Amino acid sequence: MSALHIERSNLKIGEHPTGLPLEVPVITLTGPADGPTVYIQANIHGAEIQGNAVIHHLLEAFKANPPAGKITLVPLANPIGINHKNGEFTLGRFDPVTGVNWNRQYHFDGALLDGFVAELTEASDEAIRQQFRAQLRAQINQRLDNPWGLTVGQNLCLRLQRMAVEADIVLDLHTGPVSARHLYVPSYTRERARHFNIPLNILMPSDFDGALDEACFSPWWQLSERFAAQGRALPVMVDAFTLELGSQEWLNVEDAKQDAAGILNYLQHQGLWSHCADPLPYTLTLQTQYACELSDYKALYSPSGGQVEFLAPLCEPVPAGQPLARLWHFNQLGLTPDNGLYQALALPCNAIPVLHFASASVQQGTELYKVLTNTFAL
Amino acid sequence: MSALHIERSNLKIGEHPTGLPLEVPVITLTGPADGPTVYIQANIHGAEIQGNAVIHHLLEAFKANPPAGKITLVPLANPIGINHKNGEFTLGRFDPVTGVNWNRQYHFDGALLDGFVAELTEASDEAIRQQFRAQLRAQINQRLDNPWGLTVGQNLCLRLQRMAVEADIVLDLHTGPVSARHLYVPSYTRERARHFNIPLNILMPSDFDGALDEACFSPWWQLSERFAAQGRALPVMVDAFTLELGSQEWLNVEDAKQDAAGILNYLQHQGLWSHCADPLPYTLTLQTQYACELSDYKALYSPSGGQVEFLAPLCEPVPAGQPLARLWHFNQLGLTPDNGLYQALALPCNAIPVLHFASASVQQGTELYKVLTNTFAL
Amino acid sequence: MSALHIERSNLKIGEHPTGLPLEVPVITLTGPADGPTVYIQANIHGAEIQGNAVIHHLLEAFKANPPAGKITLVPLANPIGINHKNGEFTLGRFDPVTGVNWNRQYHFDGALLDGFVAELTEASDEAIRQQFRAQLRAQINQRLDNPWGLTVGQNLCLRLQRMAVEADIVLDLHTGPVSARHLYVPSYTRERARHFNIPLNILMPSDFDGALDEACFSPWWQLSERFAAQGRALPVMVDAFTLELGSQEWLNVEDAKQDAAGILNYLQHQGLWSHCADPLPYTLTLQTQYACELSDYKALYSPSGGQVEFLAPLCEPVPAGQPLARLWHFNQLGLTPDNGLYQALALPCNAIPVLHFASASVQQGTELYKVLTNTFAL
Amino acid sequence: MSALHIERSNLKIGEHPTGLPLEVPVITLTGPADGPTVYIQANIHGAEIQGNAVIHHLLEAFKANPPAGKITLVPLANPIGINHKNGEFTLGRFDPVTGVNWNRQYHFDGALLDGFVAELTEASDEAIRQQFRAQLRAQINQRLDNPWGLTVGQNLCLRLQRMAVEADIVLDLHTGPVSARHLYVPSYTRERARHFNIPLNILMPSDFDGALDEACFSPWWQLSERFAAQGRALPVMVDAFTLELGSQEWLNVEDAKQDAAGILNYLQHQGLWSHCADPLPYTLTLQTQYACELSDYKALYSPSGGQVEFLAPLCEPVPAGQPLARLWHFNQLGLTPDNGLYQALALPCNAIPVLHFASASVQQGTELYKVLTNTFAL
Repeated sequence: MSALHIERSNLKIGEHPTGLPLEVPVITLTGPADGPTVYIQANIHGAEIQGNAVIHHLLEAFKANPPAGKITLVPLANPIGINHKNGEFTLGRFDPVTGVNWNRQYHFDGALLDGFVAELTEASDEAIRQQFRAQLRAQINQRLDNPWGLTVGQNLCLRLQRMAVEADIVLDLHTGPVSARHLYVPSYTRERARHFNIPLNILMPSDFDGALDEACFSPWWQLSERFAAQGRALPVMVDAFTLELGSQEWLNVEDAKQDAAGILNYLQHQGLWSHCADPLPYTLTLQTQYACELSDYKALYSPSGGQVEFLAPLCEPVPAGQPLARLWHFNQLGLTPDNGLYQALALPCNAIPVLHFASASVQQGTELYKVLTNTFAL
Repeated sequence: MSALHIERSNLKIGEHPTGLPLEVPVITLTGPADGPTVYIQANIHGAEIQGNAVIHHLLEAFKANPPAGKITLVPLANPIGINHKNGEFTLGRFDPVTGVNWNRQYHFDGALLDGFVAELTEASDEAIRQQFRAQLRAQINQRLDNPWGLTVGQNLCLRLQRMAVEADIVLDLHTGPVSARHLYVPSYTRERARHFNIPLNILMPSDFDGALDEACFSPWWQLSERFAAQGRALPVMVDAFTLELGSQEWLNVEDAKQDAAGILNYLQHQGLWSHCADPLPYTLTLQTQYACELSDYKALYSPSGGQVEFLAPLCEPVPAGQPLARLWHFNQLGLTPDNGLYQALALPCNAIPVLHFASASVQQGTELYKVLTNTFAL
Repeated sequence: MSALHIERSNLKIGEHPTGLPLEVPVITLTGPADGPTVYIQANIHGAEIQGNAVIHHLLEAFKANPPAGKITLVPLANPIGINHKNGEFTLGRFDPVTGVNWNRQYHFDGALLDGFVAELTEASDEAIRQQFRAQLRAQINQRLDNPWGLTVGQNLCLRLQRMAVEADIVLDLHTGPVSARHLYVPSYTRERARHFNIPLNILMPSDFDGALDEACFSPWWQLSERFAAQGRALPVMVDAFTLELGSQEWLNVEDAKQDAAGILNYLQHQGLWSHCADPLPYTLTLQTQYACELSDYKALYSPSGGQVEFLAPLCEPVPAGQPLARLWHFNQLGLTPDNGLYQALALPCNAIPVLHFASASVQQGTELYKVLTNTFAL
Repeated sequence: MSALHIERSNLKIGEHPTGLPLEVPVITLTGPADGPTVYIQANIHGAEIQGNAVIHHLLEAFKANPPAGKITLVPLANPIGINHKNGEFTLGRFDPVTGVNWNRQYHFDGALLDGFVAELTEASDEAIRQQFRAQLRAQINQRLDNPWGLTVGQNLCLRLQRMAVEADIVLDLHTGPVSARHLYVPSYTRERARHFNIPLNILMPSDFDGALDEACFSPWWQLSERFAAQGRALPVMVDAFTLELGSQEWLNVEDAKQDAAGILNYLQHQGLWSHCADPLPYTLTLQTQYACELSDYKALYSPSGGQVEFLAPLCEPVPAGQPLARLWHFNQLGLTPDNGLYQALALPCNAIPVLHFASASVQQGTELYKVLTNTFAL
């Protein structure tokens, strides 16, 4: 039996001053066989649109070839961020009242690990999985029940996280400002992360700093580390990734097929179609993929104010000392014969540019480029 | 004698709350012979950067071939707008305190025409020119001396206008959001406007609505109309244009050479190098140029909220009924089998797209495209 | 029979990028007898909250003593402006994308007067009223049907105006930044405007500049002027007022009773309870009311940047030369022995302060105070 | 000898896109005798103006009675935050590009403690003071020399911190939104903190989270804790406080005298006038001062959207269950007979309100009030 059951609901995550309810669309797919639980969300940063088109293609693919397991799809995940314009652009990276990044408000308090490991030393992997997930679920629910209330971002993020905490695989679809495709890879997933077929990759440690991917993988990873310290090799039971699909403020539905293809390739590898007799059309020939450690993922900040020409193409290696950008000082016009009108900006080491700032007008301290350094093949 | 005299100064146009003075760079060129007075400014809208690079190339050209007359160049004309970021982008089209467009705060009170024409019915063209300019100058100075003070925008615009009012030719260098090159052409300049060699053109009437080009041409044009009503054919003595050089938030210094070339071609036609014996390298072969009346320069507004794919390439004719854009409603995912997920947006008539909105995320009422309709060759 | 019929509906005026519909609550009251049609709206500027509380009190009063005629109440009239925060405050005076003031987007094209007066020279007052209203209604509907769509502000304002155009009395409830109560009085209503019992008043001419009060009274006033030019004394058939109820970003429901009392006093004078046998409790003893012409309602702009102490109490006369405010320059600390640290700001004439700026940190050109000058008793 | 040496300079902390340098005024006072080094700054959050007036009064007091030691005064400490308006208000709490709070960008890397304590186990207190300060200074300088550049906030904060790191006493002058006076008290200073004579106090632990007070006291406090772990009682050698002087967007120079008086009382107690024979006029009679632990300093978040009446006066105890605020839902007008139009908001425990939100229009999740709970006398 190959039926796919599709449910659609709206999740209320807040309320505007006029009383207008803020809702997020949630699509739940239940497949024809048991399999992993998958959670995929897009557009938590308001200007990062392209992931919605990827979810559209994924839904089409899932309809065409029903996967095993249960899949939750959440497009347009942040109605506050998406709907907040200042000028023509979407001010969607942070809460406009408090400045807090929308993707730093998920929750994990590591204190729950302390007692847990001692209690379940002898438990089966499956028992650990179920009981640890129950604890994570309880931690989120407890926070949602705070009698003092929740911030705007917590109202949003904790309700999304309550769905994500149930999943074995979590994908958070983002974009950069002007950006090449890149992927944040928790290092324990390094082998299978290659199946996304994304050219640039950043390897992450087990720390938690408030983002959704971290909120989903850190608890399980730290759990695994605790057991390892006791000599038991417990696998990390959840995969969670942040995919950066290109540039913000841009929609290209055709182009999103490429991102959907990488995700389907990864999901197939994770067993979503292991119930199917025939081979499916989702296998990709993998391209060369570069990676570096998170500590080697570096930003170049503007040494002064000015207007920038971004010279270095994204995703192509730049040798040390070769100009990445030209910073113009048009306030020098009429003053300078030949010097001082612009300066060339280069890096002290080889690098691969991943993204650059979205505006050509910058102040001293603007993040001009982010680059991979000390790269290696994924 | 071919010397060019270059002076550089800073014009104070405001003061920040901390007492920080806000200054605009002013470069004044005095050529080796008598000739027209020219005023060229760039970046009055904060995100519209490219004009600064055009001024750079013009300055280089003027140094290489000193022009007759006097030229004033003002790059980075609006330090408040240029320096005001909200998120990564520059909120530079309007005063962030009041919302008033920075290019709607120039001044002209048509009341001065009333007495003027009667008094100078018999005067020579040159006497009219001098006395009318003196009146315009006095009107601006009087407003600057207001004992109640001036708004932020008036402090800026009137000080720029005080320089522009002295000029026979005024060029205000702008860009659109995501935009093809286009030109606002006061209709009396239609013949000579062709020398800018800009593909898309909008013909303007003699009204004044607060923009710099209008503030410079409307008084002289209305003066000419008044004399015409009395049967005297007085030429319009000032040319003023707004040039839209492409897209905002972007700098490409090489590409700006093309805009400089068109301006030099126009300026040469206006006699800036008539003192030169040898032909100069500024003559262009003109491309096909489309135009329409201002009343036929139309905007398409979004019929609902959603995410947009801008389909129609800029500067290429689109027939009536052919989709310009696709508006996606990702909140319909999981609800709609095949309809309702997107709508195609078309126009009721043939058109040439000039510019489109800078973000793919739009609300009901967002200006999606601006287009020329009822076009003809310039 | 003294029943009051109450209907409540929601008016859709726009849609967010996520598809979220933007709705305005509309309460319609139909009284027990024929009488004037009244339209009252609040909060078109997002930070101007207090009018909602006034509408609450009015509704209670109307329930207690059902008025003749038909009344439409529209609280929270602008969901876009009300819901748009930047920092803690509401950026609600203008469209954050375009900068256009939300209260400058109503519509009236005076061209319809041209043919109208000639055609109805001999018609009765009542025929004129009905036919002119039909024309105004048609003008708005035609604009709403624009095949090119409408801007965000037009989508909002024209839908509100379509309700207001039916009314004989229109009240638009605003507040200032930090402000005393004041009233914009179209000069033909001067006698009856006194019944609002508001201490400060500004007399308006018949011009139209896009605000709701003007959009409602200008057509009828200009119509009256046209008939007057032909020798026929046609009364102005619509009253429309903008009431400024105090300060923005503030709600005091008890205090709003005072504003409701003034409005009820005016409405009673306009005949809303003429069907009642017994006297009603709405008659007020009028206080002293000052007024000036709109051209004498002046703003003082800051002569430089700095930090301001607002010295002059609102609503109390200040003689010429007496300091209204002290402007501090803390960047002079350590530089100046005794001078230069602050400057006292005074006016060249006697004045009554109406409102002042909402922040103590100002740039050169900030509107510090607005004041009545050349005042007289209303 | 009672001379006071005053120097004034400007510190460049950034550059606008136009090249405009961003400067902070620095006043350095050298007293007639040896004494503590003091650093006092104001207005790092752009809307928090009142501290500048306090610095003005302190400077006058220091001139009248020259203190021992060296004092650095920094008014208008954040030209970016102070000069950034959105609407009438100052968007000054966070970087408008990145959202990062301006008072979370100071630096301390605790790794330097690791080797340090082992090396100086036997050193004198004074040797420890000097060498530890040298290390802190070096850490800041190293970060300032980053070849990849610095963010906008680091360019500002590290340059301020480079001055503050030299001080024995650091005062950072802030305000709340609408707020009573309150003080953040590192718990080791509890006794002497009473001399500020501030009614509400929050006791802080030794953590570092990026604020200036923490950046100044945490290193020394953690150093003391390390030595304590080894059995040596090393005093914490630096006092650092954040003073919250009342409400933002407001200046009252007379009122600031009260804050200056508290600071002078504290400074006198810390020995700034121990070189003076005669008693000075700075001794205050202390008022009742309440305090609670940081973990008991709680925020109440709005349970839904609406318009708020803030009922509870600041600085006065409110018993559990008594309404702090009334939240109005004007979108219920015409729907609800008597219920649902507003809700009363109360707390689950006794509390003393410290501050409330600056706008009466709130969304679900807005921080309505901050309160002390489990209070005790300081």
